[in-house]
Amino acid sequence: MATVNLADARRIIEAAEARAAEIGQPMNIAVVDAGGNLVAHVRMDGAWTGSVDISVNKAWTSRAFDIPTKDLGANSQPGQQFYGIHASNHGRVMIFAGGIPLRRGDEVVGAVGVSGGTGEQDQTVAEAGAGAL
Amino acid sequence: MATVNLADARRIIEAAEARAAEIGQPMNIAVVDAGGNLVAHVRMDGAWTGSVDISVNKAWTSRAFDIPTKDLGANSQPGQQFYGIHASNHGRVMIFAGGIPLRRGDEVVGAVGVSGGTGEQDQTVAEAGAGAL
Amino acid sequence: MATVNLADARRIIEAAEARAAEIGQPMNIAVVDAGGNLVAHVRMDGAWTGSVDISVNKAWTSRAFDIPTKDLGANSQPGQQFYGIHASNHGRVMIFAGGIPLRRGDEVVGAVGVSGGTGEQDQTVAEAGAGAL
Amino acid sequence: MATVNLADARRIIEAAEARAAEIGQPMNIAVVDAGGNLVAHVRMDGAWTGSVDISVNKAWTSRAFDIPTKDLGANSQPGQQFYGIHASNHGRVMIFAGGIPLRRGDEVVGAVGVSGGTGEQDQTVAEAGAGAL
Repeated sequence: MATVNLADARRIIEAAEARAAEIGQPMNIAVVDAGGNLVAHVRMDGAWTGSVDISVNKAWTSRAFDIPTKDLGANSQPGQQFYGIHASNHGRVMIFAGGIPLRRGDEVVGAVGVSGGTGEQDQTVAEAGAGAL
Repeated sequence: MATVNLADARRIIEAAEARAAEIGQPMNIAVVDAGGNLVAHVRMDGAWTGSVDISVNKAWTSRAFDIPTKDLGANSQPGQQFYGIHASNHGRVMIFAGGIPLRRGDEVVGAVGVSGGTGEQDQTVAEAGAGAL
Repeated sequence: MATVNLADARRIIEAAEARAAEIGQPMNIAVVDAGGNLVAHVRMDGAWTGSVDISVNKAWTSRAFDIPTKDLGANSQPGQQFYGIHASNHGRVMIFAGGIPLRRGDEVVGAVGVSGGTGEQDQTVAEAGAGAL
Repeated sequence: MATVNLADARRIIEAAEARAAEIGQPMNIAVVDAGGNLVAHVRMDGAWTGSVDISVNKAWTSRAFDIPTKDLGANSQPGQQFYGIHASNHGRVMIFAGGIPLRRGDEVVGAVGVSGGTGEQDQTVAEAGAGAL
């Protein structure tokens, strides 16, 4: 299967870090490969320690379901079709913004997950990372 | 990073216990250091045993995200930006009142977590504890 | 059921701390009640953070099986009758020295757990604590 | 408490990667701070995915007990004083070579964990990382 490698992950993280610095919010940034397994993670100085797990699992979730976590979240609110999905997979499913699949052409080759700010901040930093693939 | 020590934790717990006695509600009270690791815990006679874990994890959550759990809870309701965060970090994220970061100047040096009563009761006892740092 | 209370736990912890100071080894000290539920815990300044969990669970184990963890450990080595017991109870069973049941007459009313040094150090500090009941 | 930051972690990882390349064995390399929380992780291309967790937890273990995991392992064999410690802390305690505390003077400021090869290979790569602090 086509997949991101460590060099890709570092390029993605570098772009995400630059965007985080730009908006003045330290972040946790994680990249997983096509198998959903972690390739690289960084916690910027001052970023929340509780967001280590969340950044890794936003990336995992985005690849596990090939969907941005923001969109999965919209489908997972009370009354929606995927409500309750966050109880599955031993607590790995994150249903709020900041996780984005990484694509080459039609193929999902990994995902990036960002956590450390508001949903909007996490999302813009994740987008900057995904844009660097 | 600056952190609370055991003497600080005991002073905080003493103040929290005094407030709990004042309102007539036995409580679990926990203090974590700057790294999120437990420094001290007490369960007052008659306090709920199910609140041992909750008090420790309210303290952990407040330090992990540098925020009172009451405020995190407001952001974690259905439809809000952090809805679903309680599924992360292996069940350690508590999203109701009673956890408060401990600050020295601008720096978060630990957190206190209280559990054993209503949200309002837990909050006032945690505030009394935090005020004693 | 007869059980230790918070005042008992504090007296036990105070005696254990004094012994830890005497031997110059900072410790985690935990006391559980007759129900196996945590009553109080302290981590002395400089004690290992990995021993928070161990101290609490040594105490839990000693009450869960009404036996010192040192003795349980002797029965839990490869080839012995309880080998494998550490895999039970979701990782709470500790099978090395430092946990001691607390007795009043014939009745077990709780337990103390100590972690932070060698097995011998943990044991002597736990004994000092148990002696203060 | 003094702690490593992201720049430190990257320097440590770079040195560890260089050693891993030298011995021709791709590795997972992780660095935690003084609180035991992850600062950065990389999985070199071709390294085992099962070693992501192990590298992070070797680092965590080395800081949690301020000891190389190789030495902890020697004390945790059947019949030894810490036998059974691997059941504690929810499966985070790693008792084989590859985790090393990071020191500045007398103070432990974090730890590095390496996993992906033999015990000997993990150890030499971790040592190279630790040497770069």
